[in-house]
Amino acid sequence: MILCDIGNTTVDWDCEGEYSKQSIEDFNPAEYVETIYYICVNAKILPLLRSLENWIDISICVDFKKYYPSMGIDRIMACEAIDEGVVVDAGSAITVDVMHDGCYAGGFIALGLRSAQEAYAKLSPALAESFNFEVDLTIMAKNTPDAITVGFLAPLIEKIKCLGTPIYVTGGDSKVFSSLLSDAIVDDHLVFKGMKKLIEKGQLC
Amino acid sequence: MILCDIGNTTVDWDCEGEYSKQSIEDFNPAEYVETIYYICVNAKILPLLRSLENWIDISICVDFKKYYPSMGIDRIMACEAIDEGVVVDAGSAITVDVMHDGCYAGGFIALGLRSAQEAYAKLSPALAESFNFEVDLTIMAKNTPDAITVGFLAPLIEKIKCLGTPIYVTGGDSKVFSSLLSDAIVDDHLVFKGMKKLIEKGQLC
Repeated sequence: MILCDIGNTTVDWDCEGEYSKQSIEDFNPAEYVETIYYICVNAKILPLLRSLENWIDISICVDFKKYYPSMGIDRIMACEAIDEGVVVDAGSAITVDVMHDGCYAGGFIALGLRSAQEAYAKLSPALAESFNFEVDLTIMAKNTPDAITVGFLAPLIEKIKCLGTPIYVTGGDSKVFSSLLSDAIVDDHLVFKGMKKLIEKGQLC
Repeated sequence: MILCDIGNTTVDWDCEGEYSKQSIEDFNPAEYVETIYYICVNAKILPLLRSLENWIDISICVDFKKYYPSMGIDRIMACEAIDEGVVVDAGSAITVDVMHDGCYAGGFIALGLRSAQEAYAKLSPALAESFNFEVDLTIMAKNTPDAITVGFLAPLIEKIKCLGTPIYVTGGDSKVFSSLLSDAIVDDHLVFKGMKKLIEKGQLC
């Protein structure tokens, strides 16, 4: 089975369990003849995908009543992968979603690590520091790198820890977050897992 | 007594208890003849201030060992105003500092409300929403404005509540934060209070 997760800047592939990534600029869906199951948050490329018969949109299998209208399809897929627990997708934004007994219990969106650091740098040259991932987040800071790291990460990590278990961490910054969330399960392919589960449930293949 | 708090974009005045604000572009320290006690985080204007005999820098009264070298003098002044509790200065950045028995116990720096909203908008047009200050921060969100509001504010407010009492709130967004922090004391003149306390202690006037 070939799965494809199309974002605004990158395209992620799961070809029979072989994972790869490409830039959206290099992506031409018309050059494939195989059946490809996809999700797509990229509004520009969606009309072309819909015109190609071998590209099958998995979002048709989603029970959208479970979620909310403007929720990203990639975020929904990561939620579909689990029945119980918390999904932290640490990418350009950090989405945090809670599932209870297969039902979506809501979530929130924090800024991503890079986005937050850029926003600090824009506020003042004095805050144009990198986060210090070695800092003890339980202690109040006494220097600038620690002060912005604790300011951004300590409230967020403490909030996530209150939401329940198990905690699944995915996305480009999954390693950083798993080091801050003890016992969290890192799963970089949670979106593909959700896609597969939906395909099987929807008997699309 | 005339007090002046000089920032990068605005200048705040306390003239015998009369508070006013002006833009940094309209500020010309050479046009005053009165004795003025000041703090200044604006590196461009500092050399001129130091050359004027009637402008007295209160930072000379600060025991900097209590704080950390890169800590802003305005933040230090707000801390000097209290002996015990938490100071939340909600401005372009949100600084949170803890004082115990007159000693500085550390702090952290979060992004300001405007800065955070700009960073969300930069991530995606879908996140270019205003915060919803009416939202219940204890509940997970099920729409985008609530998801970014809960994502930014809920962790921060919960963290601040854990730091102790009393909580003093100051800065341009003090009203918003005081509505989220029940029992918080709004004091828009905390920096001036700290300045006065230091002047008296340092017997500068």
